[in-house]
Amino acid sequence: MIKNFNAFKKSLQDGREVYYRGKLVKDVTKHPITKLEVAPVEALFDEQYWFNNPDYGCRTSRFWNIPRNSADLLERSKITYEITKELEMLWPHIGSDCMLALRVSTNTLGGVFKERYDAFAKHVITNNLWLACAQIDSKGDRRFRPAEQPDPDQYVHVVQEKKDGIVVRGAKLHTSMTAIANEIVVCPGRAFKEGDEDYAIAFAVPPNTKGLKLIMRPGIASEGAKHQAEGPRANWKRMGESMTVFDNVFVPWERVFVYKDLKAASGLALLFALFHRLSAVSYRTALAEHFIGMGKLIAEANGVDRAPHIARDITDLIVYTEIQRACSRMACYECHIDKRSGVAIPNNIYTNAGKLYSNSNYMKVMNSLIDIAGGVACTAPSGEDYANKDLRPLVKKYMTGAVSGEERFKLMLLIREQIALLGGEEAVIYIHAEGSQEASIVELYRSYNYTETKEGIKKMLDRMVF
Amino acid sequence: MIKNFNAFKKSLQDGREVYYRGKLVKDVTKHPITKLEVAPVEALFDEQYWFNNPDYGCRTSRFWNIPRNSADLLERSKITYEITKELEMLWPHIGSDCMLALRVSTNTLGGVFKERYDAFAKHVITNNLWLACAQIDSKGDRRFRPAEQPDPDQYVHVVQEKKDGIVVRGAKLHTSMTAIANEIVVCPGRAFKEGDEDYAIAFAVPPNTKGLKLIMRPGIASEGAKHQAEGPRANWKRMGESMTVFDNVFVPWERVFVYKDLKAASGLALLFALFHRLSAVSYRTALAEHFIGMGKLIAEANGVDRAPHIARDITDLIVYTEIQRACSRMACYECHIDKRSGVAIPNNIYTNAGKLYSNSNYMKVMNSLIDIAGGVACTAPSGEDYANKDLRPLVKKYMTGAVSGEERFKLMLLIREQIALLGGEEAVIYIHAEGSQEASIVELYRSYNYTETKEGIKKMLDRMVF
Amino acid sequence: MIKNFNAFKKSLQDGREVYYRGKLVKDVTKHPITKLEVAPVEALFDEQYWFNNPDYGCRTSRFWNIPRNSADLLERSKITYEITKELEMLWPHIGSDCMLALRVSTNTLGGVFKERYDAFAKHVITNNLWLACAQIDSKGDRRFRPAEQPDPDQYVHVVQEKKDGIVVRGAKLHTSMTAIANEIVVCPGRAFKEGDEDYAIAFAVPPNTKGLKLIMRPGIASEGAKHQAEGPRANWKRMGESMTVFDNVFVPWERVFVYKDLKAASGLALLFALFHRLSAVSYRTALAEHFIGMGKLIAEANGVDRAPHIARDITDLIVYTEIQRACSRMACYECHIDKRSGVAIPNNIYTNAGKLYSNSNYMKVMNSLIDIAGGVACTAPSGEDYANKDLRPLVKKYMTGAVSGEERFKLMLLIREQIALLGGEEAVIYIHAEGSQEASIVELYRSYNYTETKEGIKKMLDRMVF
Amino acid sequence: MIKNFNAFKKSLQDGREVYYRGKLVKDVTKHPITKLEVAPVEALFDEQYWFNNPDYGCRTSRFWNIPRNSADLLERSKITYEITKELEMLWPHIGSDCMLALRVSTNTLGGVFKERYDAFAKHVITNNLWLACAQIDSKGDRRFRPAEQPDPDQYVHVVQEKKDGIVVRGAKLHTSMTAIANEIVVCPGRAFKEGDEDYAIAFAVPPNTKGLKLIMRPGIASEGAKHQAEGPRANWKRMGESMTVFDNVFVPWERVFVYKDLKAASGLALLFALFHRLSAVSYRTALAEHFIGMGKLIAEANGVDRAPHIARDITDLIVYTEIQRACSRMACYECHIDKRSGVAIPNNIYTNAGKLYSNSNYMKVMNSLIDIAGGVACTAPSGEDYANKDLRPLVKKYMTGAVSGEERFKLMLLIREQIALLGGEEAVIYIHAEGSQEASIVELYRSYNYTETKEGIKKMLDRMVF
Repeated sequence: MIKNFNAFKKSLQDGREVYYRGKLVKDVTKHPITKLEVAPVEALFDEQYWFNNPDYGCRTSRFWNIPRNSADLLERSKITYEITKELEMLWPHIGSDCMLALRVSTNTLGGVFKERYDAFAKHVITNNLWLACAQIDSKGDRRFRPAEQPDPDQYVHVVQEKKDGIVVRGAKLHTSMTAIANEIVVCPGRAFKEGDEDYAIAFAVPPNTKGLKLIMRPGIASEGAKHQAEGPRANWKRMGESMTVFDNVFVPWERVFVYKDLKAASGLALLFALFHRLSAVSYRTALAEHFIGMGKLIAEANGVDRAPHIARDITDLIVYTEIQRACSRMACYECHIDKRSGVAIPNNIYTNAGKLYSNSNYMKVMNSLIDIAGGVACTAPSGEDYANKDLRPLVKKYMTGAVSGEERFKLMLLIREQIALLGGEEAVIYIHAEGSQEASIVELYRSYNYTETKEGIKKMLDRMVF
Repeated sequence: MIKNFNAFKKSLQDGREVYYRGKLVKDVTKHPITKLEVAPVEALFDEQYWFNNPDYGCRTSRFWNIPRNSADLLERSKITYEITKELEMLWPHIGSDCMLALRVSTNTLGGVFKERYDAFAKHVITNNLWLACAQIDSKGDRRFRPAEQPDPDQYVHVVQEKKDGIVVRGAKLHTSMTAIANEIVVCPGRAFKEGDEDYAIAFAVPPNTKGLKLIMRPGIASEGAKHQAEGPRANWKRMGESMTVFDNVFVPWERVFVYKDLKAASGLALLFALFHRLSAVSYRTALAEHFIGMGKLIAEANGVDRAPHIARDITDLIVYTEIQRACSRMACYECHIDKRSGVAIPNNIYTNAGKLYSNSNYMKVMNSLIDIAGGVACTAPSGEDYANKDLRPLVKKYMTGAVSGEERFKLMLLIREQIALLGGEEAVIYIHAEGSQEASIVELYRSYNYTETKEGIKKMLDRMVF
Repeated sequence: MIKNFNAFKKSLQDGREVYYRGKLVKDVTKHPITKLEVAPVEALFDEQYWFNNPDYGCRTSRFWNIPRNSADLLERSKITYEITKELEMLWPHIGSDCMLALRVSTNTLGGVFKERYDAFAKHVITNNLWLACAQIDSKGDRRFRPAEQPDPDQYVHVVQEKKDGIVVRGAKLHTSMTAIANEIVVCPGRAFKEGDEDYAIAFAVPPNTKGLKLIMRPGIASEGAKHQAEGPRANWKRMGESMTVFDNVFVPWERVFVYKDLKAASGLALLFALFHRLSAVSYRTALAEHFIGMGKLIAEANGVDRAPHIARDITDLIVYTEIQRACSRMACYECHIDKRSGVAIPNNIYTNAGKLYSNSNYMKVMNSLIDIAGGVACTAPSGEDYANKDLRPLVKKYMTGAVSGEERFKLMLLIREQIALLGGEEAVIYIHAEGSQEASIVELYRSYNYTETKEGIKKMLDRMVF
Repeated sequence: MIKNFNAFKKSLQDGREVYYRGKLVKDVTKHPITKLEVAPVEALFDEQYWFNNPDYGCRTSRFWNIPRNSADLLERSKITYEITKELEMLWPHIGSDCMLALRVSTNTLGGVFKERYDAFAKHVITNNLWLACAQIDSKGDRRFRPAEQPDPDQYVHVVQEKKDGIVVRGAKLHTSMTAIANEIVVCPGRAFKEGDEDYAIAFAVPPNTKGLKLIMRPGIASEGAKHQAEGPRANWKRMGESMTVFDNVFVPWERVFVYKDLKAASGLALLFALFHRLSAVSYRTALAEHFIGMGKLIAEANGVDRAPHIARDITDLIVYTEIQRACSRMACYECHIDKRSGVAIPNNIYTNAGKLYSNSNYMKVMNSLIDIAGGVACTAPSGEDYANKDLRPLVKKYMTGAVSGEERFKLMLLIREQIALLGGEEAVIYIHAEGSQEASIVELYRSYNYTETKEGIKKMLDRMVF
């Protein structure tokens, strides 16, 4: 069992093939960028995030509590929110999102799949392993379904069936936290149709499995924060994603949880998305609170917090935050219980409505935040200018607003980090992570129960006579 | 006690001075427009909306249940939603919104004010009276505060103090349901400052009080629905508003609940708005469901329900509905309890965020609904054309879509009623009723607790060193 | 030749089958609703809209000037704008929009089609006839193309070919001004593919042709304006649309301008849309100016014209107006000349961008207008209340703002007419008339020339080396 | 006269005090960041941007042509657009924007001010000098007007009047191109009222003037583009801004163009903003074309260019581009001529409407662009991964879409540069540069001529009788 942060760091030194900017990373815990990805895990060892897990008879992370009712889901949403606030970055517990979805799916399948899942879950939870979840395939030419692709490897698929397991090939994109995971769970990323059987699979492998290559996206924001004061968050902690290449990777049968099962695979894709989107709306609420805090402090620092257009801007931030909070909590308050597994499943409609609202309005609230900040959010001098003892008095003097020059200057560096360093990544994350706007539209439109709303209208139609 | 709908109708024949289109309405229960305002009250006599009221020791409307916890508030929100669905029109129980606010305010004031309130509440509830609440003053030139107005009567105020009561003058606008009320409660409509004492009052009077004149707004939608099938809702029931003129009206002391008290009056104005906005977000959820039902049925009737832009339009309607529902319920789940009165007060932030979201997005979802409906929502033939036996086959034939011509024609008449008859009033209601967008912005901006959000940012600032 | 308004009115008494609310209209110039449709034509006889037409060697309406350059198109846009301002209603000269498109198409076809067009154009122009243009078919089940429809009549088509002409069947919807036209030009409403030949036709017939039935949409706004002061525009003039049924209508060959020609018919559909959309963006500029005027006068009357959120609202109206003006004029400044016919064709991109902007933002500016107006836009008393000498002083007193009560009351009636009477129709018109938002998206996306924008990007890509 | 790019570079080696990240930049033409700011100037020496200037009797940049009619302004807008396209970055000719405004202002003032301006203009233009224009003051606490500020230096002002000139103190923010200018023109940044006289000044100084310190903003995007292929634009050219500190700077009288003149200074502030906003809408049109090109190429590379939601996204980009183009050109087509100076002044309404539209919709179109790009815009591997010969085949294979893996990968690096590197700065620029949204709202609301729009409404009111 991984007992503390040091043991965790040690567990990552296992020969995994991680590449950053074209070079093999020898030790992810020491590389200047990947170590920022390791850093947030420390928080998980904090006593406040642990509890006596009744299902596993030992102390585990609170994230491994199996939600069986609204209260459990609310707590799950709440600790996601809290850890995001603490880490000042998005930090969904993807591993348990994924394991919960797998729990429901394998309980439905039963038999050997349930047994494999139970054994794997016990292994992961009692050993306190950290998981990544690889879902979205490279997809190739999007006009084609998996089995129709000119290159069959554009979705991860079985290429060989052996006595003791299977061989898979393909690549997953956007996979968060692989470089720092103890296991990578691989889930399907879409619904399948007949002919796609080889793609309808789910399994798990450790990151140091032969043939597995993790090519990391560059940490632009962290690299770009030259002076410490210009990247208080970007230089502190980060989340990393990899292109996760499965170059003929062997997976033993006991780690295969769904196998050539179109229905189970399609269902699992949706179910993971649902748990993950609840985490998303929960962490987004926490991040959005930061926008309010920044906006309000800057407005006060500029002396404009009584200007009506600034009040409107800040109210935009408030409404953005509180609607996300309302949706994430309602998804817990009004969940439903999966009969077989006993798992409480978040309300699909509130989760997706909250998620779609979050995706669709992010750029609008950024507009409000930038409007509050003013042009200095871009054109403020650098941290090094302030460190220069001759320039400091000038910068201080001319950055003075309704608060001291130093406080306002810091606020401007902070907002510049938010907008110009973290902003680009974050915009893509807000708009695409956990599914694009179109994905939420398709899901809401498909799954909404129109019966009652139609019946209301039919009553009206019935009153119409000629 | 008013025991049934007939007794209620009778109670309205009391000599009240109601004017419609310049003429005195002799009997509001018989006049073709005001009788549509009387009609919805019938639903309130339905058994499902009654319960044994523990506070008053008798059977009363469920709306008179004093909410003392989340569950009570949730039920309150739910019956508002349900009655809106049943009546197919907005139907907030304004009287109990207002009485709850008064209950809290008078409990805070204590003494004679609490006594007067308790007596009045008992009278109203045990006799099953229907209340209107008059809040918004004529306001005159909006550049001036009440006491600064060139005409002092632009806000309702005390003009004379007598031994047995007071004399008031002024006019309230937009007062819903006065014509059909048994009592009119008059509340302040804004916050007050020193000098405004004469305006800082709350009281109640019966509608037939001498000097009280109710000048009704014209029921344009109901008048405009020439053929029955063109106004299935407009010709069925409606809500009416009056300019409520207090032409030196005498109010006995026992009906004066707040008197020349700047703080209590200002607080009451906000508190009524809060209860009323929860009712608003609740009824708006129900109305929005009708938009979904209309949109989906029309999309199917047109054969376009699989077109991606139509899916997006309908998803707009779904998100609009579900965010309102989420906010209204969260306002109940996370309420707070007023210590003195024991009344559960809706969460201010969720209520106002939901209300502001509702106001600000109404026109956008109408755009989506109109986009789904197509131009026929305006240019369809009339109900009389369909009633003409020679024209009917032609209209039927050429209104045929993916469903029969008659069904699609009815849907088009229904959407035309929604857009062209009810639409104009409704747009104003959605944007202004229960407070304008600016009012919600001001309230959210003012009342939001920024402490925690600021502290999160200050932690970041503290990490910045030069 | 129709020399004056009286002669025009007389020309409409020709036995045409016009139905209004299920009844045959005996004389459209006398019927209370259709006479409002006749009324605007009077303006066309005003000397300012006439000129010596060099192409026809006689005095004709300026709308019949064949635009051969930017200046001509600008004038065309300008008189559309001016007549809209004068009539206070949308009033595109659809007939000449349509004839210009036909001119270009038949010049391209040449031969007999050009001859027929030239003869018809001379007849129309020298006799000063008023035209309607019927374009949009009933469409049936929109999943199917014309030739695939379960009912082949859902698009107007040839059902019989005779020696002296053809017989057509089907129905056109949304056809403006048919009841008051001297000729109805029938154009295709979409692009066609192989198999649709019978639908690929264009022709003209007089409204009193046998088998032609005009079923008018009800004039809800005009009917609903009970008191004269509540419908200063709705009761003054209006535009009417019909379901235009072709029940085996015979068309002589000399009035058939496109015949079973997929390419010519598809091109004509787009070209008419283009000319018509330029008219649309021109008249919408004029209408939008009214919104500014209303908004500003009401803001001043309420005494809120210095409030920042009101300034923002009014600026929304200004930007909406001026962007439409900019696009309509740019479509003229940067037109292109059709070589064969010499006709100046409006710039496709500016026209459609302006039109799409206009459609997509209408509801947003209505939100701004309603926000300015306040709830009184819905709840103001009626005109009859003001006419009542006892009520008048009260209404006057309590409608007083920063201007007199009478002036402000009138403004409120006017805004109520705009929002609650005309608003519904207008919303549908703004969103759908001259093509829906989706239609403009499809057209812009299809026709935009991406070459240069792509080349700019390719230059960047070429600089990228590894 | 500065005859070529080398001479220009030499002219910058003049002892100016430029600071970058806390260090004095010895030679701005060699420093890795500031040399990117020098680079774009080379384009100005291209023959295509020169002409025989009739006013100065010598060959000068076309930007120095004094616009005297629409055609001149159109050309001015066009070359701004063209140079933006060529440089692939915003590059308004701020110096001539500013000198045109000064020309009009000093011609109005006449006398010594006109003489000084004329001499200075001749010096600048005939010597081919490059100008910066410093306008926006540090502003301090924005609740206070200049003369009310606790620190009087928060707006640049006269602190001493000498025989041969004046001494000024203060700081200007956001000043573009100062590090590479031959002269810095200092303009007021707001309207003034009585008491602000010391602030109501305009003047020019060379950047190496004693007491002048240029503290540059860090070039985050350029610094952050680690691999050449990840910053094809950011590493190629850039624009830089400074905090421009006037630490008791002496200005000789012959360089003082406005002096303690509230009206002239206020007018100059607006006039410079106007010329500069025309440049802005012109360069923004060019930049927006790049968004179209990127969006379309990526959509094609992903194989999704036929998906309706992608068509809508790309149409958003098209409309955004073409409305800006329409407004910029209309501002030229419908300009007015200043009588005294003969200078053609851009149409204020179209310029500001276009600018406000541009500011307000930027984040929305970025949303569309990110929606098209997909998550790979954030999570794609790095340029170094592609340069690694072992990883290249994998990256290539799994970046393959409907085009080759290399082409698609380059597109993803390009969009990542756009969004994550340049995006943050650009968002602030789009929302604030050349004036914030609120500034445009205030200006449009203030300067719009409401007369005609009100008269249209008054005609309606006159028809209303009771």
